[in-house]
Amino acid sequence: MDDVNAYMEQLGYQAREASRQLRRVSTAEKNAALEAMADAIAKQRAMLQAENAKDLEAGKANGLDAALLDRLQLSDKVIDTMIEGLHQIAQLPDPVGEISDMRMRPSGIQVGKMRVPLGVVGIIYESRPNVTIDAAALCLKSGNAAILRGGSEAIYSNRALAACIRAGLTAAGLPQSSVQVVETTDRAAVGRLVQMADYVDVIIPRGGKGLIERISQEARVPVIKHLDGICHVYIDKDADVDKAIKVAFNAKTQRYGVCNAMETLLVADAMAAQVLPPLAKLYREKGVELRGCERTRAIIDAKPASEEDWATEYLAPILSIRVVDDVDAAMDHIARYSSGHTESIITENFTTARRFLAEVDASSVMVNASTRFADGFEYGLGAEIGISTDKFHARGPVGLEGLTSQKWIVLGDGTIRK
Amino acid sequence: MDDVNAYMEQLGYQAREASRQLRRVSTAEKNAALEAMADAIAKQRAMLQAENAKDLEAGKANGLDAALLDRLQLSDKVIDTMIEGLHQIAQLPDPVGEISDMRMRPSGIQVGKMRVPLGVVGIIYESRPNVTIDAAALCLKSGNAAILRGGSEAIYSNRALAACIRAGLTAAGLPQSSVQVVETTDRAAVGRLVQMADYVDVIIPRGGKGLIERISQEARVPVIKHLDGICHVYIDKDADVDKAIKVAFNAKTQRYGVCNAMETLLVADAMAAQVLPPLAKLYREKGVELRGCERTRAIIDAKPASEEDWATEYLAPILSIRVVDDVDAAMDHIARYSSGHTESIITENFTTARRFLAEVDASSVMVNASTRFADGFEYGLGAEIGISTDKFHARGPVGLEGLTSQKWIVLGDGTIRK
Repeated sequence: MDDVNAYMEQLGYQAREASRQLRRVSTAEKNAALEAMADAIAKQRAMLQAENAKDLEAGKANGLDAALLDRLQLSDKVIDTMIEGLHQIAQLPDPVGEISDMRMRPSGIQVGKMRVPLGVVGIIYESRPNVTIDAAALCLKSGNAAILRGGSEAIYSNRALAACIRAGLTAAGLPQSSVQVVETTDRAAVGRLVQMADYVDVIIPRGGKGLIERISQEARVPVIKHLDGICHVYIDKDADVDKAIKVAFNAKTQRYGVCNAMETLLVADAMAAQVLPPLAKLYREKGVELRGCERTRAIIDAKPASEEDWATEYLAPILSIRVVDDVDAAMDHIARYSSGHTESIITENFTTARRFLAEVDASSVMVNASTRFADGFEYGLGAEIGISTDKFHARGPVGLEGLTSQKWIVLGDGTIRK
Repeated sequence: MDDVNAYMEQLGYQAREASRQLRRVSTAEKNAALEAMADAIAKQRAMLQAENAKDLEAGKANGLDAALLDRLQLSDKVIDTMIEGLHQIAQLPDPVGEISDMRMRPSGIQVGKMRVPLGVVGIIYESRPNVTIDAAALCLKSGNAAILRGGSEAIYSNRALAACIRAGLTAAGLPQSSVQVVETTDRAAVGRLVQMADYVDVIIPRGGKGLIERISQEARVPVIKHLDGICHVYIDKDADVDKAIKVAFNAKTQRYGVCNAMETLLVADAMAAQVLPPLAKLYREKGVELRGCERTRAIIDAKPASEEDWATEYLAPILSIRVVDDVDAAMDHIARYSSGHTESIITENFTTARRFLAEVDASSVMVNASTRFADGFEYGLGAEIGISTDKFHARGPVGLEGLTSQKWIVLGDGTIRK
């Protein structure tokens, strides 16, 4: 335990030093490092897969299920995607150094804001070793030093990827400790990482709700977190029926196990008889289990929905349906059960749409669009390190900009305060 | 204790409900409430001063010192300033609802950001009862519900001010619990307030470092905090001598007990013999005690500075001075001892200025300007709820915008994800 603490302190100290150096590094140097990492991964494909095989073997021996083993595997396709991701992040605009809102003040100073790296970012994640490369690339491009703590089940893979990252950093002349992979599987390392407020500026956990809640509890450092995705589509009384059916079907069935899938469909009473029967038919053909309130079950065949259903993120082909009086009742339901992720209204009514946009408190609020669009790539961020359900700092899909902060800059000419 | 918890839970629940209603309130209604609060305070001046007298009396009996009693007093001047502050905040532009960066995406959706209130803001502060009005006004204008917890020494004053706030809310037809003053002096109330993550979105403590550290330790809710203000001015080898002397003198002596006053002066070796003697003369005339490193003391008369001096926020007519080799040594010193508040360089060299702006990690970084400018009013924010030394979310002076967040909005036309 003391050893782990000392080890983590050292990583922290080194990361802080590297983050200072990264403030002077040019965009071209950062991009060169990213390209060199891609080259190293391409060259070391055989080595990476050999190390990955050790993790897979241990995983099998430890009885990991097929889905987990699948996520753990560095297949050729996964490696190709990592390489392509590095090229893409190299091509994104550098967010650092952007100066905005410079204004002259009556005192004679000129004041504005400059976008700067946060400093040191700690990422804690499970199984998928490709996160190691994604996270390293996004942190580096945004000028941050990174400390990466992957799952113990991927330790051989992550160490091998770390070697490729270091090769890329070295090739571009950047400090080795710009990206550090925690090379111990001791769980105490995580506990220490989230407490080192002197060295770490933000923690981003990626994984199951249990992991994220535990980290949030223990952290003494700000956490960008993603908890539930209990997303709603509300079909308003003034909805266009075709759009309503198209969006409600897409939001549930385009993919099930994702945070931006719809979990509960809300339907205005005046519209229920028109949209529920055709929707129920589509869902049933697709194998989606329906659970409804009383009013829903008076119109279509569905199991009764319980109080618990409204508060559940199914991540599965299950949908709860509730008929509500109007947009106010829909927003009441959302305020009570939403996880603040993504909420969509289907309506042709301008005033209702405007109210929904202003009043619903979620990281993404939509009109006549599928909740499945809540995603960094779909929003044009180019890349995404996660989706935040917090309101503080970064909200919704977090790309390079979410890994930066803005400081004030003041220019004068020997200007003093009277 | 159970009673306090139940009481705080109720305040939290009510604040959450009020914050939902505030999302639909117009700018005109918020401004009307602020103007009505100003009217209520003007009309209730005698009552406010009578209640304030009870606090002053109790303060004297409890042996509060003269400075604290002074800060506690609701003099005519303090009341006039509160009224004027309310008018000014009413006149500021409303940050809520601002839509930015709306862009069409290839999928057919249109994506951008909307500025929205954070929700419920908890403010914890000491002695000065005028903070009650400032904080209430800033939170309301930015569309947030507020829970205000002042010091027990100001409880009568704060209750009386709360009555004026409620009168203003009622006159404008806004929910009473838009602004709630905690009316118990039980310290457990603070402990509960900073833990109610379901009801409170952010805590802003205003007070001494001890209070802020304690709250940060206990909080389960994000905290916007202001710790030390250990600010530096660095006089570069390429500084203009007149500007250097003017700014270094102003940054230390324009006011002593403030967080943006300079505490340590750094001087490039090549410039020391030129600027230190005239500066030392000015400081001495003003009664500023000088503490210097060896190299400083070889040029001017000063007490020896200890390691502790570099890490101390004097808030007093004391200045530590260090002669450094160059801008790199100055930035090393700043990286080590700065509290990340405000740092200024005096130089005519473009490249050195550009490096200092990019590489120094502080909430405000300045060139040829006095650190005393780091202030919400000087920056043109119109009002300030505090100065954040955090990097996360709000940084530096926090005005109305710092009390808001941005959510994503997505507009479509029945658009679905392929």
